[in-house]
Amino acid sequence: MNQRAPEDQAHHPGTVRTSSELLVDLRERSPLVQCITNTVVTNYTANVLLALGASAAMVDLPTEAGPFAAVASGLLVNLGTPHAEQRAAAVEAVESAAIAGTPWVLDPVAVGGLPVRTDLARRLVAARPTIVRGNPSEIIALAGLGGGGRGVDSSDSPDDALDSARLLAERHGAVVAVSGAVDLITDGARVVRVSTGTPLLTRVTGGGCALGAVMAAFASLTADALAAAVAATTVYTVAAEQAAEEARGPGSFAVALLDRLASVDGADLVARSVRA
Amino acid sequence: MNQRAPEDQAHHPGTVRTSSELLVDLRERSPLVQCITNTVVTNYTANVLLALGASAAMVDLPTEAGPFAAVASGLLVNLGTPHAEQRAAAVEAVESAAIAGTPWVLDPVAVGGLPVRTDLARRLVAARPTIVRGNPSEIIALAGLGGGGRGVDSSDSPDDALDSARLLAERHGAVVAVSGAVDLITDGARVVRVSTGTPLLTRVTGGGCALGAVMAAFASLTADALAAAVAATTVYTVAAEQAAEEARGPGSFAVALLDRLASVDGADLVARSVRA
Amino acid sequence: MNQRAPEDQAHHPGTVRTSSELLVDLRERSPLVQCITNTVVTNYTANVLLALGASAAMVDLPTEAGPFAAVASGLLVNLGTPHAEQRAAAVEAVESAAIAGTPWVLDPVAVGGLPVRTDLARRLVAARPTIVRGNPSEIIALAGLGGGGRGVDSSDSPDDALDSARLLAERHGAVVAVSGAVDLITDGARVVRVSTGTPLLTRVTGGGCALGAVMAAFASLTADALAAAVAATTVYTVAAEQAAEEARGPGSFAVALLDRLASVDGADLVARSVRA
Repeated sequence: MNQRAPEDQAHHPGTVRTSSELLVDLRERSPLVQCITNTVVTNYTANVLLALGASAAMVDLPTEAGPFAAVASGLLVNLGTPHAEQRAAAVEAVESAAIAGTPWVLDPVAVGGLPVRTDLARRLVAARPTIVRGNPSEIIALAGLGGGGRGVDSSDSPDDALDSARLLAERHGAVVAVSGAVDLITDGARVVRVSTGTPLLTRVTGGGCALGAVMAAFASLTADALAAAVAATTVYTVAAEQAAEEARGPGSFAVALLDRLASVDGADLVARSVRA
Repeated sequence: MNQRAPEDQAHHPGTVRTSSELLVDLRERSPLVQCITNTVVTNYTANVLLALGASAAMVDLPTEAGPFAAVASGLLVNLGTPHAEQRAAAVEAVESAAIAGTPWVLDPVAVGGLPVRTDLARRLVAARPTIVRGNPSEIIALAGLGGGGRGVDSSDSPDDALDSARLLAERHGAVVAVSGAVDLITDGARVVRVSTGTPLLTRVTGGGCALGAVMAAFASLTADALAAAVAATTVYTVAAEQAAEEARGPGSFAVALLDRLASVDGADLVARSVRA
Repeated sequence: MNQRAPEDQAHHPGTVRTSSELLVDLRERSPLVQCITNTVVTNYTANVLLALGASAAMVDLPTEAGPFAAVASGLLVNLGTPHAEQRAAAVEAVESAAIAGTPWVLDPVAVGGLPVRTDLARRLVAARPTIVRGNPSEIIALAGLGGGGRGVDSSDSPDDALDSARLLAERHGAVVAVSGAVDLITDGARVVRVSTGTPLLTRVTGGGCALGAVMAAFASLTADALAAAVAATTVYTVAAEQAAEEARGPGSFAVALLDRLASVDGADLVARSVRA
């Protein structure tokens, strides 16, 4: 966290104010997020969106995914279990999103060593996602700077992935969000770090995957994709901090996170960010 | 809720007594419900059935789904994520159910605008489901009276769908259940309204989908499909009301609903229905 | 539980000590378990592994599943919803596991009456799994001694399946674990019974499926597959006993089980086993 310029702070009062305003917007407009995601996390992802005040639709069939992406508020494409029909659906959805101007998030789960998703990720990232979200190993692998991580785990820290994130951002015109103890979000030029959160997020499956869906929801509310990714991360990790305080372990944490996503508000963002 | 005749009341003492008796039956006989349902809600649906005292089997493969439907107590076909194998499984399952006399429930999720599920729903509803369950937009779309809703959400109220529900009921010989703040259930002639429930059900994914499975369980216990749909809805929404009172948000509500489905009994149905 | 020899006791002090040591090992080494499992339980299975201190990766695609099985610590193949791609993935994964020496667990869900999974189970068991885990009906069906059970439920008791379990163990060189009120685990020669647990495990979907994944995690830590299966069963059922004491029903039980899997330790194993 050295070498931070003042504009690099998610906890800068102006950034927190923007995140709070976007959160109010989200609850008023209830964006509908199309999720093409893996079979492990569909349920939790939908519940995260509903708890927060957004809507979710898991439309991941060929011939349905494309048309739906044209009318959805935002789109998530997560490569956790990309079966054949879902791969075709993902390709047609991002093409449709590009034409319709639907913002979309790419989560290249476990990309690098596994051939099917790696080929698909390469193709999808070239279609210029609004936001790319991953752990450090995934971001490094996607940028072509490394050989991939340990499956869905990450053995690197977000700052190890900073150069890769910047490269991806510049090459594809995307905002890139790297998850870790301190989350790192960049549009290539600016770098924002979000230090709220809890290690319990790593003990619940889909903790990161659901954040990708939340980013798609926020990206539907503003043309500033960096602000959207920062707001999503801040809201999610502040709710997670609150949930951790009332949890007795990873099971009750996952439940409390849904409760806190429904209640978290601007005052909570201020209180946690000042403290962070 | 104007123009209600006395026989239209789920809270009529005789109706509550029937629901209570069916609930006792369900726990004694533990019907096995075959679920062909979407990837988002499989887990919660199975847990709802198990909590209530029924059994669940997600047999949704071609060549397995047909034979299984002949021996299952009831069958749910939910069109939330109808991938190719599941579509073939659904068709063979309902054919087998018809021959074997297995009661079955059709939940036409997001039907109307999306082509794959709309074609499948048209074919399946012609196979004469015992019960059709959906939100108002889905029921209107399935009846061919409207152009579909906003994905899985519903922008209409149950009473907007009453004519469509009656039409579907008469055309296909089915009981039709329309979910909303007040659930509406009809066999074409009679209309029953169930006013127990909580808005938190709309903040948990699969809240409606799981009710479809519960209807299939109750439909296995009686030849009176209207009574089965009313009992399922009453039991489910009374448990949901109880759960809402102990919840701190949508996460703990979903957990508490499972707890209350395991404990809800006839006395609870009476107490809540008198109050409703 | 008659005719037990002293060496048949999971609650023998030496056995409990081994289980405790393996639990410490698991948390230090965090084995990565590849799960090829059914769509109903993927989420809960991953959360069980994460709560316990292991890692999970649901890599179940052809061309990815094989290479991944060569580097994973352990592999679970569960036949609950074996769609076509998953069947191909399962076959290549077990072939790869055999070459790489990756221990693997076969869970033949609902095998017997359903043709697709029964054919696949026959092929997979011939590939010599490290551990076979199932309910009594499934073990009896897999051994060819019976006609299958009632879908995913089991109408037999573990001791009814003892001869079948021994036969499978001897024929395929596997440890066989049969779930029930008292779990029974055998390598053909030795038989160990584990009597900790709670009936609430039968009210949560995937309670048994997740135990298969835990067995794969423990099997990666020791060449003694019997000790691994006993340790997995003991840790899981002790945590389940603890969870049952704080639960208000099946919903809060499933949550509390994740909390207790994260906290259970050797002292808990000793305390519960002495009492059992």
